[in-house]
Amino acid sequence: MYGEFELIERWLAPTTGEPGKASGVSLGVGDDACLMRPAPAHELVVSVDTSVEGQHFPEDAPPQALGHRALAVSLSDLAAMGAQPRWCLMALTLPEVEEQWVAKFAQGFHAVCDEADMTLVGGDVTRGQRAVSVTVMGEVPTGEALRRDGARAGDVLAVTGALGGGAGGLAAWYEGQRDLESPLLARYLLPQARWQAGLALRGLASAAIDVSDGLLADLGHLLKASGVGARLDAEALPLAEGLVEALGTEAAREAALTGGDDYELVVALPSAAFDRARLALAELGLAFVAIGQVTASPGIQGVNASSLPGWQHFHGGTS
Amino acid sequence: MYGEFELIERWLAPTTGEPGKASGVSLGVGDDACLMRPAPAHELVVSVDTSVEGQHFPEDAPPQALGHRALAVSLSDLAAMGAQPRWCLMALTLPEVEEQWVAKFAQGFHAVCDEADMTLVGGDVTRGQRAVSVTVMGEVPTGEALRRDGARAGDVLAVTGALGGGAGGLAAWYEGQRDLESPLLARYLLPQARWQAGLALRGLASAAIDVSDGLLADLGHLLKASGVGARLDAEALPLAEGLVEALGTEAAREAALTGGDDYELVVALPSAAFDRARLALAELGLAFVAIGQVTASPGIQGVNASSLPGWQHFHGGTS
Repeated sequence: MYGEFELIERWLAPTTGEPGKASGVSLGVGDDACLMRPAPAHELVVSVDTSVEGQHFPEDAPPQALGHRALAVSLSDLAAMGAQPRWCLMALTLPEVEEQWVAKFAQGFHAVCDEADMTLVGGDVTRGQRAVSVTVMGEVPTGEALRRDGARAGDVLAVTGALGGGAGGLAAWYEGQRDLESPLLARYLLPQARWQAGLALRGLASAAIDVSDGLLADLGHLLKASGVGARLDAEALPLAEGLVEALGTEAAREAALTGGDDYELVVALPSAAFDRARLALAELGLAFVAIGQVTASPGIQGVNASSLPGWQHFHGGTS
Repeated sequence: MYGEFELIERWLAPTTGEPGKASGVSLGVGDDACLMRPAPAHELVVSVDTSVEGQHFPEDAPPQALGHRALAVSLSDLAAMGAQPRWCLMALTLPEVEEQWVAKFAQGFHAVCDEADMTLVGGDVTRGQRAVSVTVMGEVPTGEALRRDGARAGDVLAVTGALGGGAGGLAAWYEGQRDLESPLLARYLLPQARWQAGLALRGLASAAIDVSDGLLADLGHLLKASGVGARLDAEALPLAEGLVEALGTEAAREAALTGGDDYELVVALPSAAFDRARLALAELGLAFVAIGQVTASPGIQGVNASSLPGWQHFHGGTS
């Protein structure tokens, strides 16, 4: 694509950090591939997510939010594994090169990248429908990753932060709200990946997953992988700021149960570990709220979820 | 996207290989992310490439070829670094789920994946303009990667295989040829990443790059990174099978100089190492042909390339 080299040099390379010990990068962007030095006695954790215009974000979403969001949703997978974020790669597809747009997109992306102490180690820019695919790489001491399959009957179920903000923010967007300072809209457009919480939960949690498709759907994956069930306390669900005011109590709870794009962690842990975990997350300024218990019998009890089988991401008018 | 889980389970997971020592994978697809164990005393090599319909491949390209090609072009970056391929991630965007199409695409992708002894460790399937973004990860003993910046005046310049096949195959496609047994068309649609050659050239080559944008363009990057120039012998360029018959001698040489999508390696190496390298590649069934020499003075001499500044990938009618 015409201008690819210039784009990469200008917007990607400058913030990739210097090769060196801190970044774990021994050869930075500019060759056929980057070289990195993994930490000894660690496992690598990798994941990829694509965000497509009209599917995962509206056409008129602010580019800065899009850059932030594209990395945050991938980073959330590292959070769910308890991994230390290290490196990322970005594949950006654009209908045309609008320098202003790219600059703002890069600003949002790099803000999240810097905050997570990650280094961008690869990129590609192509022409087509606007979309961005982000690969994230993290590290975790061998054997210490949080997984989906470790929940045991009797474990407490808890969530970080608050739920329903993704769905509430999307509803606000549909209603024409555009102020990113609005808590709900920010929850949708500028999600915060809970990677610090993931690190703090290592050694405490028996299982974890991030809430990208809705609490019930994602908790369902965790329970299935662990061969257990759950009883939830619907009244205990922490609701995102402004959600009840915006949607009313019932719809707010529904959003918390089935809304997507929250990017909180739902965690199973022995009750003896819960207080330590809550204190550790409080030090990060993050709530950690018990919402139920793991049961030996399968299925999810305590909430009426039969009518709400799952979350559909943002869809444009055509789908 | 509706059907994503089913698609991933059916077409991606079955061939991801069993977690275990050989694959370096300790936790396979099915959690928030995979876990891998990097080899000690090795550097990680990562790269990402996106192929977009209408830009990098025609709309009616056979899905099997597209799956093959999407991985091969990323793998070619590992080849250029002399890395052992290990793991890959695939982000696939489709306008709709056509199971037949996906099955054939997966077949092409996995054939390359298996041949390179790679394990697929992550995937995402989304809805939108057809595109595929592939991240590849390889390993190289620390300090032994082939780089662009090591060429020295006096080095021999050589290329693997033959050149111009990518451009010749594209021309054949435009003319309506659809027989993948045709050598030229196969060179365009089913490129062979030279990762085995890359491994064999470790310790022999002083610099290497893969030819994706045309010999002159990519050699130019290598020379610039090394702070040197080159004198080429245009008559020595190895031409792809069928190229002269299809295009005539002059256009064939032009295709070899500026045609893209060849995915051969262009290599600088001390003349004392050339014969050993040639023999090592001959054992792989691969030609290794000297095409010139590295010079202290910058620029590329010996070919008339001023009128051909670079290669444009396949473009649909609109661009």
